[in-house]
Amino acid sequence: MSIHEECGVFGIYDKAGDCARTTYYGLYALQHRGQEACGIAAINDRELSSYKDIGLVGDVFHEKILDELNGTMAVGHVRYATTGAGKRENAQPLTLKYVKGTLAVVHNGNLVNTGALRKYFEYRGAIFQTSTDSEIIAYSIAQERLKCGSVEEAVKNAMPMLKGAFSLIVMSPRKLIAARDPWGFRPLCMGRRGDAVVFASESCALDGVDAEYIREIEPGEIVVVEDGVVRSIRDNCPEDSKGNLCIFEYIYFARPDSEIYGQSVHFARRMAGRLLAQEHPVEADLVIGVPDSGLDAAMGYAEESGIPYGEGFVKNRYIGRTFITPNQQSRENAVRIKLGLLSNNVKGKRVVMIDDSIVRGTTCKAIIKLLRDAGAKEVHMRVSSPRFISPCYFGTDIPDKKDLIACHHTVEEICEMAGADTLGFLSVENLHKIAPDAQCGFCDGCFTEHYAVEIDEGYAGGTGCN
Amino acid sequence: MSIHEECGVFGIYDKAGDCARTTYYGLYALQHRGQEACGIAAINDRELSSYKDIGLVGDVFHEKILDELNGTMAVGHVRYATTGAGKRENAQPLTLKYVKGTLAVVHNGNLVNTGALRKYFEYRGAIFQTSTDSEIIAYSIAQERLKCGSVEEAVKNAMPMLKGAFSLIVMSPRKLIAARDPWGFRPLCMGRRGDAVVFASESCALDGVDAEYIREIEPGEIVVVEDGVVRSIRDNCPEDSKGNLCIFEYIYFARPDSEIYGQSVHFARRMAGRLLAQEHPVEADLVIGVPDSGLDAAMGYAEESGIPYGEGFVKNRYIGRTFITPNQQSRENAVRIKLGLLSNNVKGKRVVMIDDSIVRGTTCKAIIKLLRDAGAKEVHMRVSSPRFISPCYFGTDIPDKKDLIACHHTVEEICEMAGADTLGFLSVENLHKIAPDAQCGFCDGCFTEHYAVEIDEGYAGGTGCN
Amino acid sequence: MSIHEECGVFGIYDKAGDCARTTYYGLYALQHRGQEACGIAAINDRELSSYKDIGLVGDVFHEKILDELNGTMAVGHVRYATTGAGKRENAQPLTLKYVKGTLAVVHNGNLVNTGALRKYFEYRGAIFQTSTDSEIIAYSIAQERLKCGSVEEAVKNAMPMLKGAFSLIVMSPRKLIAARDPWGFRPLCMGRRGDAVVFASESCALDGVDAEYIREIEPGEIVVVEDGVVRSIRDNCPEDSKGNLCIFEYIYFARPDSEIYGQSVHFARRMAGRLLAQEHPVEADLVIGVPDSGLDAAMGYAEESGIPYGEGFVKNRYIGRTFITPNQQSRENAVRIKLGLLSNNVKGKRVVMIDDSIVRGTTCKAIIKLLRDAGAKEVHMRVSSPRFISPCYFGTDIPDKKDLIACHHTVEEICEMAGADTLGFLSVENLHKIAPDAQCGFCDGCFTEHYAVEIDEGYAGGTGCN
Amino acid sequence: MSIHEECGVFGIYDKAGDCARTTYYGLYALQHRGQEACGIAAINDRELSSYKDIGLVGDVFHEKILDELNGTMAVGHVRYATTGAGKRENAQPLTLKYVKGTLAVVHNGNLVNTGALRKYFEYRGAIFQTSTDSEIIAYSIAQERLKCGSVEEAVKNAMPMLKGAFSLIVMSPRKLIAARDPWGFRPLCMGRRGDAVVFASESCALDGVDAEYIREIEPGEIVVVEDGVVRSIRDNCPEDSKGNLCIFEYIYFARPDSEIYGQSVHFARRMAGRLLAQEHPVEADLVIGVPDSGLDAAMGYAEESGIPYGEGFVKNRYIGRTFITPNQQSRENAVRIKLGLLSNNVKGKRVVMIDDSIVRGTTCKAIIKLLRDAGAKEVHMRVSSPRFISPCYFGTDIPDKKDLIACHHTVEEICEMAGADTLGFLSVENLHKIAPDAQCGFCDGCFTEHYAVEIDEGYAGGTGCN
Repeated sequence: MSIHEECGVFGIYDKAGDCARTTYYGLYALQHRGQEACGIAAINDRELSSYKDIGLVGDVFHEKILDELNGTMAVGHVRYATTGAGKRENAQPLTLKYVKGTLAVVHNGNLVNTGALRKYFEYRGAIFQTSTDSEIIAYSIAQERLKCGSVEEAVKNAMPMLKGAFSLIVMSPRKLIAARDPWGFRPLCMGRRGDAVVFASESCALDGVDAEYIREIEPGEIVVVEDGVVRSIRDNCPEDSKGNLCIFEYIYFARPDSEIYGQSVHFARRMAGRLLAQEHPVEADLVIGVPDSGLDAAMGYAEESGIPYGEGFVKNRYIGRTFITPNQQSRENAVRIKLGLLSNNVKGKRVVMIDDSIVRGTTCKAIIKLLRDAGAKEVHMRVSSPRFISPCYFGTDIPDKKDLIACHHTVEEICEMAGADTLGFLSVENLHKIAPDAQCGFCDGCFTEHYAVEIDEGYAGGTGCN
Repeated sequence: MSIHEECGVFGIYDKAGDCARTTYYGLYALQHRGQEACGIAAINDRELSSYKDIGLVGDVFHEKILDELNGTMAVGHVRYATTGAGKRENAQPLTLKYVKGTLAVVHNGNLVNTGALRKYFEYRGAIFQTSTDSEIIAYSIAQERLKCGSVEEAVKNAMPMLKGAFSLIVMSPRKLIAARDPWGFRPLCMGRRGDAVVFASESCALDGVDAEYIREIEPGEIVVVEDGVVRSIRDNCPEDSKGNLCIFEYIYFARPDSEIYGQSVHFARRMAGRLLAQEHPVEADLVIGVPDSGLDAAMGYAEESGIPYGEGFVKNRYIGRTFITPNQQSRENAVRIKLGLLSNNVKGKRVVMIDDSIVRGTTCKAIIKLLRDAGAKEVHMRVSSPRFISPCYFGTDIPDKKDLIACHHTVEEICEMAGADTLGFLSVENLHKIAPDAQCGFCDGCFTEHYAVEIDEGYAGGTGCN
Repeated sequence: MSIHEECGVFGIYDKAGDCARTTYYGLYALQHRGQEACGIAAINDRELSSYKDIGLVGDVFHEKILDELNGTMAVGHVRYATTGAGKRENAQPLTLKYVKGTLAVVHNGNLVNTGALRKYFEYRGAIFQTSTDSEIIAYSIAQERLKCGSVEEAVKNAMPMLKGAFSLIVMSPRKLIAARDPWGFRPLCMGRRGDAVVFASESCALDGVDAEYIREIEPGEIVVVEDGVVRSIRDNCPEDSKGNLCIFEYIYFARPDSEIYGQSVHFARRMAGRLLAQEHPVEADLVIGVPDSGLDAAMGYAEESGIPYGEGFVKNRYIGRTFITPNQQSRENAVRIKLGLLSNNVKGKRVVMIDDSIVRGTTCKAIIKLLRDAGAKEVHMRVSSPRFISPCYFGTDIPDKKDLIACHHTVEEICEMAGADTLGFLSVENLHKIAPDAQCGFCDGCFTEHYAVEIDEGYAGGTGCN
Repeated sequence: MSIHEECGVFGIYDKAGDCARTTYYGLYALQHRGQEACGIAAINDRELSSYKDIGLVGDVFHEKILDELNGTMAVGHVRYATTGAGKRENAQPLTLKYVKGTLAVVHNGNLVNTGALRKYFEYRGAIFQTSTDSEIIAYSIAQERLKCGSVEEAVKNAMPMLKGAFSLIVMSPRKLIAARDPWGFRPLCMGRRGDAVVFASESCALDGVDAEYIREIEPGEIVVVEDGVVRSIRDNCPEDSKGNLCIFEYIYFARPDSEIYGQSVHFARRMAGRLLAQEHPVEADLVIGVPDSGLDAAMGYAEESGIPYGEGFVKNRYIGRTFITPNQQSRENAVRIKLGLLSNNVKGKRVVMIDDSIVRGTTCKAIIKLLRDAGAKEVHMRVSSPRFISPCYFGTDIPDKKDLIACHHTVEEICEMAGADTLGFLSVENLHKIAPDAQCGFCDGCFTEHYAVEIDEGYAGGTGCN
């Protein structure tokens, strides 16, 4: 419940027009990837216009704004970030003028050589007005554009400089360009709706705008749409790698109705539950999941174990950014407001409770207390991912080791601290079996400390869709 | 998906103070009963203060406002109503001064003798500044207060005038008074948290503020809290009736983790699914529900039928009041944005799809098309309530007969119009079996045209928490 | 600078339509009479619609709102009141339904028998949802309407109950009715624009909508516009009185380009300055005024005395409700931000400084210090009204005696406290000469303690347009 | 009435802290220089924080924001620009990171070699995220900083590149730097308050924060404040020039209580009126001015001519950005709402009406009609500046020749079009006599077509504080 995906991107090329509006619906479908800020930029007759602000898609955009943005190409962005005044300038799309005219840039991910790149550009006179990686990416493209003949070539030439995760969409007055880092950390897929071409972080956004899923953008690939024609540039695609997709997308980040690399997210979660049941069986009367992402895993656990699946919690759908945390009550009470409990379902029962992960261990403790208060006889916690032992540098906010309970405590200790009867995590070995249909390799660095990209020792870490 | 409950109420008496804040959390738990407007009134040292506005609880209230409202008693309200500028004056609580000082009034329900009552008061010089029933109720109490010795007696004496549904909380500088119409149409329960006394439309709000459920307020009962002492006035309680609770609360309105009259809402829905499976069995591969309220029924249908339960849809949690409906796309596309589909789950399968009701028939048609587009081989629609054949006069917006598809078409016709292979509704007979634990009688007027209260011929109907 | 007029009213009957928009412009012209809240109600085809909120006319109303309000009759209101959350319900127009349909009520003034009237109605079952006199007036009309044949008759019959100040406009689906209390405390005039009839607190609002000034509504008079025909009801007009217009309207409240009873406000102020020069001559080099209302009097003083008139201060036009008062600086610094000083104009000079009044004495002290700091050799303060020795009960916020410096100090003491070299107030005798063209009598109670209406001993006083 | 100054700047270095709050008051005093957007950046313990938004100073800033910004240095900006969505990014201060850390930049003025500079930087890889000159200036400084040892040296070295007008304040974590272009187009002065150093566009802002005026920043000068020590860098100061201060600052832009180069603005306007009386005498009964800036000139005209000065108009102080222009009425009616007329003052009189300028000629036509409608016998218009015959390239929005009535019509024609009896403009010769105390030279390019800086033929012109 407390790890956040950082950002979602959407782009469309549609000569029929109305692209800002389509992007609006696309962003709605990606809202789970970022609720802090959002924005849309559109090209109409080669003119760029854009609008972005802090807030949800439904709050930031109104009919009038969409009407003004309308065009035959558009890109959009939803952003997750820590709260704070004055962060408005970090909202995307980043829109800019450079030597060849205008550009709009949206991206999801996090670079790990930010410091070196900033220095590099600053020593050439650059000024940085935001703290986003988008601005660094834009500088890279702008600089390369001076030496080559097209914006897509500039993107191609800039990519080797950019170390880390980026799923990127760049829009010039005539071209829509999607690009993905050579490791393929964050997802990015392509779809079609008639002649229109659509890019999105997840396939659920294609469904949302009635576009057909075509394929993933490959790690290192650049896809250019110009005059309705789609071209692929594969110079940066690694030859010998299946890529390093963030495996936590399947566990938690992505929407269950999305498919990534041919693998349904819903089924991956269910499979995680099945494997968890094999790995950590227990005698019990009921399997329940912590909404929303624990539900699918709970269903899988139930199927595999034969223990009945049941609903345990009702999530309050109205808790938003402005929720006032109880100040005179315990954290437990905050959980009580966020999660209603079907007390009769758990009373007197031995309950298996599935959640997707344990970060600090505070939330699961409060939830287990809720179950015990309601009369659960036993609470067996099962976690549909391995223990977090290392931070993420590639665009999520999995925190530093000091804040990860599994870095400091054994499973037994965590179990006792959480107040569970037993506790079991999915093993890394089984983790790699949850997405059997996925045509890709994975990054599991937060569980294994093995990262596809070397992290500089002094790297401070990314804290947002930087 | 298109019927709306109309309003939720909450009240608390707690000498420990902080009552506005507790009410804030209580309203959060009742937000599903009304998203248009909300308000809180509090008594601090006999002084009344209040705040209300259009919007969700989380948007209307901020720390500073709650701090200013603080007190040892409070009432709160969430309101559903049709949109429209200038409706701000209809937000509740209604706060007023009358012959004996100040009062705050919140209520859920709808009176059916509004016209007569308004006339009655107008012919005595009354002015009406809102279009709510609260104002009429307030006048009734104010008038009776002139002839008797206490506000609770005034409520008691006013009640026989009020024909229809009202679950009411009245707060004077020293007393918190809950009252329910003698038919008991809308729910209202009482709980305790230590010495504090809490009233709420549903028990989920008691859970949200960590209060213990005590009991329902009985039809016709008045419960008075004064100096921490709870008294019951039962003069208006009908002797020979078990009451007429809106049975659609179990089907759709209430939160699944609420219990009403000892009956878990979640289990009632599941039972509806089981009974539906008995009544309308079908050979199929998968049972899915339309979120959110169709899910429990689907689980029950699966249990009874032995057909596997699966997730079919992912509801977009971010669709709010400001959602811009697609104007160049069909209604189907609006559904597509609101509901993501787990295509792989339904592809090539014979699917049983459970929804809670059919009103106009347009939404289910769009949903069924979604399923067919995704490759479902057969779609068997099952509805966990009977056919709507008559409007509701008691506080929900079930529309007039002209808008109810079941008034104009046979089941077969509806099935064909919706594009389903087969269609089955729960029978009225079985409807009455869904809540076996409930210690009450039911109103099923929208399904049977039999109402506990006679509706005047010319009555225009209520369209809101009037 | 610190006394506030309380409210302005506007009404129009124009078969050509667009009345809400005209009212919008009328309220703009009356904005100086109240900046806290504003509102407009309009009748279109007998249907009443309205909009009101806290804020300035220009902030509350937008094109879309005006378009929705449009009609063939409208009334509007600007309100002054002390700040405070939750006061939104006191904004006017008060719109209501009563025995004969809908009414909208706006008024300027303050009743002094509020307590008795409220009690009277409360003992007949009334509920009060605001703390405004409008609601009391509405009840009076509603009650009288039961006993007579028309709304204007009801207004006529209600008036004898209402003790105090009211300049009132009432709008029913077919009639626009203006009425003024029999003492005529607050101004109210009538104009015409072609066939359209306009009522307004001041003639500047007639100018603003290009209407021609016709005449004042007489004390006690009721003017009814129906089907374009204007009728006057004079039953409540006192026979032997010239009325009791608030003389401070000429001194301070009204806009200088207004005319009241044939007397230009600008010229009255200039005359006050002239009389002040006769009464309190002094040798000096320069006469300056404190903006805005002191400027005209300064000009008159200069004309009469022969001492050159000059600009001394530049008022900051952007200080609004949200101005953050300096917290680490003295009151003097707040004045410094509000009033820029033309230092070169006053340096080394003997300055006569004219202000319209002294209430607490703090502001003039800060201003005089400003002048001395800038090098003024002498500062002779002249006040274009007499000393405040008693509060106002009729719709302004002249405070209680305890806050009036002149109640506790002699002129000499005030002079010393303010840091002036000499100080002179206009005498009451001369006060009555400032408006030689005015065809009316005056209320000068705040200067003389003689009020046209007896104030009940226990009367708490009015604090707003009540 | 329709020419706009473009931007005001303020900066303070005060070890005592509270600098954001002082800047807030400074910006209040400069609000007349720009009402579209505003912002403040502050340095607290070497950390930069900032806040900016569209709106007036009083609307954008609240206690909480000021508290968060607090520090020992701050810069602030008020901006004028044409309206339009998405222009938020052009608000100042521009805050940025560059090779040596953070900078905040505010400026008033307009560069005329924008195109060349942008190209220059773009050909070195720059990206531009705004359309402001601030960004170009920032790039210039950032680039020069690479080659030298301090930020002030970088400013010094950058200045020769910057052709046009800029009054600039730059803030680094340790230094506050004010700089002015070598022509000295826009004003910029320095003051002190104890140990604190203050920079501001006009001296009225020094008065507003109780600082003492010290001197103007000279054309080409750079003033550096570091550790409380003030240093001047004069390398860019032209030896043989007295500067080219925009003379229209005296006529219209600046606040009358400001002094620029030792010349009181109020007296310059009065002098303009005196000279106008000498140049264009007329027999008349009354001199009136169009508020606000025409009033001082009218007073001067009256003094010189012996014709009595009087008030003619009352300006509506509440007309703001959101004013809805009358759509069914003429422009004359918009003027009627903005300007109340003291009809009795002008009735039957021969009136001299003074305004500060004529741009398109539409407003003066409407005003003259107002006077005639009120019964003025004759209207003699006098303009306290020469005819506009050329646009301004240096930071005001005096429009292109095609929109300047004086480019297409003789004085006689304009007189007739405006409906005046006679019309007289101040001659350029006399214009240069209005500020006898000013220790500087002037730019009068809009009146003479002679500019101190050569304008490139293709230059499109600046339309805002670019």
